[in-house]
Amino acid sequence: SSDSTPIRATLFPGDGIGPEIAESVKQVFREAEVPIEWEEHYVGDQIDPRTQSFLTWESLESVRKNRVGLKGPMATPIGKGHRSLNLTLRKELNLYANVRPCYSLPGYKTRYDDVNLITIRENTEGEYSGLEHQVVRGVVESLKIITRQASLRVAEYAFHYAKTHGRERVSAIHKANIMQKTDGLFLKCCREVAEKYPDIKYEEVVIDNCCMMLVKNPALFDVLVMPNLYGDIISDLCAGLIGGLGLTPSCNIGEGGIALAEAVHGSAPDIAGKNLANPTALLLSSVTMLRHLELHDKADRIQNAILSTIAEGKFRTADLGGASSTSDFTKAICDHL
Amino acid sequence: SSDSTPIRATLFPGDGIGPEIAESVKQVFREAEVPIEWEEHYVGDQIDPRTQSFLTWESLESVRKNRVGLKGPMATPIGKGHRSLNLTLRKELNLYANVRPCYSLPGYKTRYDDVNLITIRENTEGEYSGLEHQVVRGVVESLKIITRQASLRVAEYAFHYAKTHGRERVSAIHKANIMQKTDGLFLKCCREVAEKYPDIKYEEVVIDNCCMMLVKNPALFDVLVMPNLYGDIISDLCAGLIGGLGLTPSCNIGEGGIALAEAVHGSAPDIAGKNLANPTALLLSSVTMLRHLELHDKADRIQNAILSTIAEGKFRTADLGGASSTSDFTKAICDHL
Ligand SMILES: CC(C)[C@H](C(=O)O)[C@@H](O)C(=O)O
Ligand SMILES: CC(C)[C@H](C(=O)O)[C@@H](O)C(=O)O
Repeated sequence: SSDSTPIRATLFPGDGIGPEIAESVKQVFREAEVPIEWEEHYVGDQIDPRTQSFLTWESLESVRKNRVGLKGPMATPIGKGHRSLNLTLRKELNLYANVRPCYSLPGYKTRYDDVNLITIRENTEGEYSGLEHQVVRGVVESLKIITRQASLRVAEYAFHYAKTHGRERVSAIHKANIMQKTDGLFLKCCREVAEKYPDIKYEEVVIDNCCMMLVKNPALFDVLVMPNLYGDIISDLCAGLIGGLGLTPSCNIGEGGIALAEAVHGSAPDIAGKNLANPTALLLSSVTMLRHLELHDKADRIQNAILSTIAEGKFRTADLGGASSTSDFTKAICDHL
Repeated sequence: SSDSTPIRATLFPGDGIGPEIAESVKQVFREAEVPIEWEEHYVGDQIDPRTQSFLTWESLESVRKNRVGLKGPMATPIGKGHRSLNLTLRKELNLYANVRPCYSLPGYKTRYDDVNLITIRENTEGEYSGLEHQVVRGVVESLKIITRQASLRVAEYAFHYAKTHGRERVSAIHKANIMQKTDGLFLKCCREVAEKYPDIKYEEVVIDNCCMMLVKNPALFDVLVMPNLYGDIISDLCAGLIGGLGLTPSCNIGEGGIALAEAVHGSAPDIAGKNLANPTALLLSSVTMLRHLELHDKADRIQNAILSTIAEGKFRTADLGGASSTSDFTKAICDHL
């Protein structure tokens, strides 16, 4: 490699199976000679008053400084007086877009073999405002907030992504026939941005119809951009099409070019420490991180090795119907590099 | 039949293909000797000030009096100063639950052959409150309203439905991890009702996870109950699993035992009047109406005739890959009776 000084990246191995699957990524990166030096941070064992959560201030500072990171599953401890780890990360690092490439894995059979789409979710506002109250006894309300600024920002990201990744079309998902003002503003912003990208096709799809079309024929879609809750729903629906969250990469984009890639599945405490976990989602997420760093050669090599190993089918973890351990599966990937 | 005086029911044939598919229902009902006398109502050609929509006051009065009706697709005319036809019906008739039985049709192949579930959607509040405003330029908000009264009412309907239809489990779908107060109240009401039905299993599923599970393995679900928008999304997703809105029955339940069954697909103006439309959704909806009237023998006979005709496959309309006309398909159903 021509890089002499390694790139520093923050690594949150997370809880449960997190450390094992993070180990898998470290191993694959070593084998592929990725010029990255990990700065590891764990979730603290008490609430850090500066973050109001179990995330330490230092770990957030590490991402802010490195501008790039990878995160395993983190179970939010139960109790009051602190914020969810995932929501804290989104808020503190202003992670405004959640990007999930979702494609059928060759050789791993589901009901669908033609999925190849990207969901881009607005990640900071909408139904996640946290603004709720009881009006009178028995009547409660939640506020959904849509702003021009956040809508333009995520729309801009979606079109830029489409353009730089050879994608042809962006679909804005909405329910503006009912929420004319909020989703209407979201669409208006998407249209404004669409005009700056005449080479990218633009369409608007109502969320109920979108979900019906996705289960009938996901090949109809290319890049989807949407407000927070619709993104939460549709990104998981799409993950289901290709086999689940254990196979789906995810990357969060923040202001100023921060990228925090993450496995979005749970921490599976029942199998933690048993060398049984499937590291695929974290590995594919690490690939999105490499692409963000424009280390495309490394990204391609690692992605191909992961996909070939799964396609071959000799080494698969139990969740994919195989009997391999995490480390055997990882070794098989390294052998494919 | 032992009934001497026929039951009066309101029929909204609707627009576009509506009159043709309504004709199909009338024919099948005649052939099956269903003791129903239709009272037909069309959408008006001007706004009725008493309904603020193109629906006439008389047509609403007809449903209120008969307490039972069937509705074809109705396209809301474009323009300002009036309300959507569907939303007006829901509001004026207080149609608080939308019920959609969703099952794989024998012989009609989709990616799924094991769907057999019921979605029950709260139909009056939630994200459909219509309360929206601009806070400052570039910042808009929508209010989601959840009330104890409407939540209890729809939960009660869901459990009662499960019990009277031999169903085993009710799943409440929510996002209470984010909308703790609104969706939290919805869940609280479901739990209260669940306690009165110890024979029916009760579970709570987060909406994103629910959508992932539905596309992976819909057989996991039985009866689903949920707030308005989640119901809008999930009922269409489920329709997609079995082939689309053209095959999915729907029935709206109002206070005081009103039932308005409806085909939820569009009015397909492009093929209107050409004897090409598929009447299945309206026919199956008419069956839900018969069940509501406890005319189970007639309902079974008609449902079996519809399903056998589709399963046989000799007479299918173009949307199902066949070449039959609406009238030939209808005749085939009558022959099966
Ligand atoms: C755990 C939950 C708060 C979270 C969300 O709703 O955003 C999760 O579903 C996700 O998609 O990351
Ligand atoms: C047309 C639209 C307002 C309606 C809704 O969102 O309820 C439709 O999607 C439905 O499900 O009946």
